[in-house]
Amino acid sequence: MHLGCDHLCDFQDACIRKVPIFSDLSKEEVHRFQEAVHSKIFAKGQFIFRQGEKSKGLFVLSDGLVKLTILSTDGKEQILRILYPGDFFGQYALLENKTYYANAEALRQTTVCMISKEEFLKIIGHSPKTMFQFLLSVNQKLHESEEWIGARSFLEVEQRLTRYLLYFYQKNNHPGQAFNLPIPKKDFAALIGTTPETLSRKLVGLKKRNIISLEGPRGIKIIDETALQAMVGDIGR
Amino acid sequence: MHLGCDHLCDFQDACIRKVPIFSDLSKEEVHRFQEAVHSKIFAKGQFIFRQGEKSKGLFVLSDGLVKLTILSTDGKEQILRILYPGDFFGQYALLENKTYYANAEALRQTTVCMISKEEFLKIIGHSPKTMFQFLLSVNQKLHESEEWIGARSFLEVEQRLTRYLLYFYQKNNHPGQAFNLPIPKKDFAALIGTTPETLSRKLVGLKKRNIISLEGPRGIKIIDETALQAMVGDIGR
Repeated sequence: MHLGCDHLCDFQDACIRKVPIFSDLSKEEVHRFQEAVHSKIFAKGQFIFRQGEKSKGLFVLSDGLVKLTILSTDGKEQILRILYPGDFFGQYALLENKTYYANAEALRQTTVCMISKEEFLKIIGHSPKTMFQFLLSVNQKLHESEEWIGARSFLEVEQRLTRYLLYFYQKNNHPGQAFNLPIPKKDFAALIGTTPETLSRKLVGLKKRNIISLEGPRGIKIIDETALQAMVGDIGR
Repeated sequence: MHLGCDHLCDFQDACIRKVPIFSDLSKEEVHRFQEAVHSKIFAKGQFIFRQGEKSKGLFVLSDGLVKLTILSTDGKEQILRILYPGDFFGQYALLENKTYYANAEALRQTTVCMISKEEFLKIIGHSPKTMFQFLLSVNQKLHESEEWIGARSFLEVEQRLTRYLLYFYQKNNHPGQAFNLPIPKKDFAALIGTTPETLSRKLVGLKKRNIISLEGPRGIKIIDETALQAMVGDIGR
């Protein structure tokens, strides 16, 4: 029974299909759950949720860019993670029945799919394979966080910078082309634990060595990926 | 069929029962899986596993104390986590089929229960409730890691110190009594991102304000828990 939802259903189907954790769902399961998925467009600067709000469900980034941040009591912001299409977020508050511990803010026009808590629990309750995929993803995020704690302790600014440049480059999905930093340089500096001045100096240094070129205020083109890869540093592996 | 394994089975049963993620297993399920659990005692300073080794399974700390650390290429150590009885570890390498990204070292004589990958996957495959408990635990660890990334950025040394003192105190399980820091002061200083000198000064400061007393080289007694609680700082909640 698809009464007049053809376009919408296709859209929601795409939203579910885009997310690696749901890739094991059968076509029937996708159909069964697609009505539970609501998509919403957020303008640049809009909050999808804020610290302290009650959980609304699981969010999946379909298109656009989102930053997850926490604020200190005096209003300073720390970026925890930049989210790209296919990433999910909001799972902590959902699974723990708690309020959000971070803010999710759209960095440009962004489409997000939302699955209510009840529906999400139904999905993973019906599909152990999906629950396992979800477990793998949370496990992967935990690893990234712990590795980052190590990187902040051990690696030099330049190594942390090159790690992120390669990450943004890879997520940008247009090999060989210039990409824009997803966040302003001052936020990028805070993310990698340095000052804006040091960041600028390091970027100019990479440019002088012909490893990157700088294109406009936020544009970066990677010229020598191999050289960059050789600079990311090792955390004792 | 319990041919002569009475004492051993009881012991392994206790090992499984101790772990919150397995608390939902029925008595039958515990019996079914207890033969898959191998326990092993490690002396202080012994490694349960090392960075780069192949996964041996899931480890559950039954008794003792373990530190998870990563090493920089020049041999500097960063503690990621102190593990207490009931904590599990090694799940990243197990679920991702990768080598360990951290070292697990016994901080004193420690009993560890090990479940092979095959058996662990069988357990969570048979019991969606257990898989869900496991998902909740990994999700909780992710939250702690991200909160710590925020704490390292926002909080003052004293706030990070009081957070850990309260954590050790709570894990020590003897309300009102003195406890020993689980790690030497220089490691504790690195864990909270400060120097040993600053750590000592802060501890003496807390002592002068009659909030703690210092008992021997590593002993600490919390005198005014309320005052300590008021000092942990807020990450913008």
